[in-house]
Amino acid sequence: MSDVTVIGLGNMGGALARALLAGGKTVTVWNRSPAKAAALQQMGAVRASTAAAAVAASPFVVICLSGYSATLDVLSEQGVDAALDGRLVVQLTSGTPHEARSLDAWIWSRGAAYLDGSIAAWPRHIGGPQAAITVAGPEAVFSAAEPLLHILAGSIDHVGSDIGHASALFNAGLAYFAAHWIGFSHGAAICEAEGIEPGRFGETMAGLSEVFAEDMRHMGHAIAEGRFGDPETTIAATGADVARLIDLSADLKIGDAFPVFADGMFRRAVEAGYGAEENCAMVKVLRSA
Amino acid sequence: MSDVTVIGLGNMGGALARALLAGGKTVTVWNRSPAKAAALQQMGAVRASTAAAAVAASPFVVICLSGYSATLDVLSEQGVDAALDGRLVVQLTSGTPHEARSLDAWIWSRGAAYLDGSIAAWPRHIGGPQAAITVAGPEAVFSAAEPLLHILAGSIDHVGSDIGHASALFNAGLAYFAAHWIGFSHGAAICEAEGIEPGRFGETMAGLSEVFAEDMRHMGHAIAEGRFGDPETTIAATGADVARLIDLSADLKIGDAFPVFADGMFRRAVEAGYGAEENCAMVKVLRSA
Repeated sequence: MSDVTVIGLGNMGGALARALLAGGKTVTVWNRSPAKAAALQQMGAVRASTAAAAVAASPFVVICLSGYSATLDVLSEQGVDAALDGRLVVQLTSGTPHEARSLDAWIWSRGAAYLDGSIAAWPRHIGGPQAAITVAGPEAVFSAAEPLLHILAGSIDHVGSDIGHASALFNAGLAYFAAHWIGFSHGAAICEAEGIEPGRFGETMAGLSEVFAEDMRHMGHAIAEGRFGDPETTIAATGADVARLIDLSADLKIGDAFPVFADGMFRRAVEAGYGAEENCAMVKVLRSA
Repeated sequence: MSDVTVIGLGNMGGALARALLAGGKTVTVWNRSPAKAAALQQMGAVRASTAAAAVAASPFVVICLSGYSATLDVLSEQGVDAALDGRLVVQLTSGTPHEARSLDAWIWSRGAAYLDGSIAAWPRHIGGPQAAITVAGPEAVFSAAEPLLHILAGSIDHVGSDIGHASALFNAGLAYFAAHWIGFSHGAAICEAEGIEPGRFGETMAGLSEVFAEDMRHMGHAIAEGRFGDPETTIAATGADVARLIDLSADLKIGDAFPVFADGMFRRAVEAGYGAEENCAMVKVLRSA
């Protein structure tokens, strides 16, 4: 037997396997296209010839594929059902809470234990202190997998036994990241049009990271407590600034897709009666379709 | 004469006047509605009876009104033209680079010097190390105003002599902040629907502040150098995750306005041929209308 099997050897899965090898574990690997497994074999991994052999090879099975349907395809291969009995499967693939719950039921019904997780790191961070993994599942299952997870990431956050919650937090974070990429890109486009180096913009914004962190802590608690009425600035005041970004796009002859969208959201919040409340009262118009 | 005049005594203007008084300066104040000036008078400020008298009272005039048209209204009051001669006007009101350039020309033509600035701080931070002010204008004018500005904010960033650049950076930053508020609010709505405390979401995201800072530095330089081709993750891969946020909104019965918008932006970038590039290549579809 190996200590652990890794299924799926893309950029992230490959980084997981390498970190486990570097952490002194014996590792069995499997990938649908075999070239990536061959590369890991040269680094000391054992290459399984089938998915069933890979699952049979270790008490722990880490899966990192493109999505839950890819995971189900692999787990539905011949002989995997029988091999799953008694295994602990850790799935580190992004998906929805609903997909996590379905896969959880499927895996437990095969006699295996299941942890659902998501990775907040680039592949090059895996195995280091900057990498963070969020996992959900029963406490006892988490305890069994924890030493292995600590080889993969400096920070391991067990969010509780609701199997959907790691995925829910991943998606909530992804929403923020998507906004981060789009908002930064629009800001950079403003700077370019004004002849300001985007590198300078990046440095300026990075310098505000503590302001963003403080605001996120504040917003989380304000939303949890429904406490929007004592604002440092209001949705109406911010909305007036945001509306000006549309005019600015016209001045600078750049696209206005993001300002038009953001202006619409602030207007919706004002029309819903939240103009005198703080910006995160925006959540009240996002809650319903 | 006073050391400095403050025109506009709203939440931010009032904080500016209080910080200057706390810094040992003699301060003349003026506000269209007189109640706020009266409150500052009790704290030691001198209250001017007209805008012209306020401008005449000090070599430095700090203006913090609701916008450039409000500033022009005040500066167009009787007697202000004559009083402006020889003054140094610091405008700390948000607007567009075009508005800054127009006001600059107007003010210099009255024989006064001009600095255009923007504040990145809540009123309660004014006068402290967390407050940051960005200013644009000629080096010599900045040097004259710098000691005064340092009383107002711990961090003063002079972005150069192009008078529009403080406003351009303010608006670029505002685009990011607007995304931050909307993206966080959508993430919090996901958490609420899944029964995860939004306060926990805020703490998790705040813990990633160094990741965001590193990514903003990276994106700024990648955009400046047009270097999008060696991605840690691609627009196509991120776009597939973002598309899933729409399905998740349906699963959770929450609004999908933000995911639909973000998905549209990632799709536009893929259709424009940037699918294999990194996320900030998004800037290439935002540059043009």
